[in-house]
Amino acid sequence: MREAYESQLAQIDIALVAMAELVGTAIRGATDALLADDLAMAELVIAGDSEINQLNADVEEMSILIAALQAPMATDLRLVMGAIRMSGSLERMGDLAVHIAKQVRLRYPNPSIPAELSDTFAKMGKAASKIVEQTGEVIATRNTNLADVMKNYDDILDDLHRELFTVVLSDDWAHGVEAAIDVTLLSRFYERFGDHAVSVARRVIHIVTGEPYAK
Amino acid sequence: MREAYESQLAQIDIALVAMAELVGTAIRGATDALLADDLAMAELVIAGDSEINQLNADVEEMSILIAALQAPMATDLRLVMGAIRMSGSLERMGDLAVHIAKQVRLRYPNPSIPAELSDTFAKMGKAASKIVEQTGEVIATRNTNLADVMKNYDDILDDLHRELFTVVLSDDWAHGVEAAIDVTLLSRFYERFGDHAVSVARRVIHIVTGEPYAK
Repeated sequence: MREAYESQLAQIDIALVAMAELVGTAIRGATDALLADDLAMAELVIAGDSEINQLNADVEEMSILIAALQAPMATDLRLVMGAIRMSGSLERMGDLAVHIAKQVRLRYPNPSIPAELSDTFAKMGKAASKIVEQTGEVIATRNTNLADVMKNYDDILDDLHRELFTVVLSDDWAHGVEAAIDVTLLSRFYERFGDHAVSVARRVIHIVTGEPYAK
Repeated sequence: MREAYESQLAQIDIALVAMAELVGTAIRGATDALLADDLAMAELVIAGDSEINQLNADVEEMSILIAALQAPMATDLRLVMGAIRMSGSLERMGDLAVHIAKQVRLRYPNPSIPAELSDTFAKMGKAASKIVEQTGEVIATRNTNLADVMKNYDDILDDLHRELFTVVLSDDWAHGVEAAIDVTLLSRFYERFGDHAVSVARRVIHIVTGEPYAK
């Protein structure tokens, strides 16, 4: 019985780590699509989201089953309840990758971003990819020290988001209002992606330590 | 024992309805602040968010306690687990009201929106206020028919968001790039607000009917 229970708890972790991996693939694909105006890649990212959504539903169902059948306590209970919030955050990160991919599809065959911002978005994509990689690792290993590393990548995303505003609002901006809105929204998607990753890390800390969840 | 248990479940509902009321106050306050460039009102909305966050934490704690002590089944279990997602959505709606209020604070004493868009944002504020009112009611009454009414308000928000793009991208737009970005983000906050409200209604339907949660 205890063994079956441990295995059920492990299944939740496995599903969450799988979600983090899929979200990583999605944000890398979305960034590649954005930088190369690659419609096929954008479509792949959009189609891939259903698998993430399915895992989100699976995590909820598993958590409910365990809560009902096993009456878990303490850390296990925090894990079961926290898993629902973590999978919600990961699902939302997948949605943000899809938002980026849909923007590529909307503007195709035109480029989604001006060439001068390629470098900025490449950096955002890299930081986002790194932060979701750490997200999977913090779930898998419960190594809460990784939360600090994640915070660094989140700061990078915030800084890039702010820098982009400076570019868009400068007198040199030659791409008009629509492009300004496009890149601002795109940049916001990356910035929000980082926020959700950090919230997953905080949730893991809460599960491990029992300390109140710091918003 | 059964009585204490019923009362605990009722407490969760009461907390969720209270969240919906506070979120309603927040979005109305944020809209008033936006339309009247009212810094004091914006500050009120920003300060009020901590109460919503506290209720969100309370709902989670109550849900965990009930799951641990009472081993609820079927509808009750869906309620306990669903409450965590619903309070997460309501908390996020509060954040979106705060985003609007912070934008007012950022631009103060300048107006946050051009006068010609006052009417659009007034309509958004009204639809957002209505949709969160319905959100509280659907939680309190379990009247899932209200979900259709909410869908209407969500459609209104989506339409207004799309209309705003047309205005901002027209040749007549005379307010430059920064204002275009500002109003697009503001409009997006209202549009997302509606999405989260709809997701709460879907969650109530799931609790009542046991049907799979439709994303």
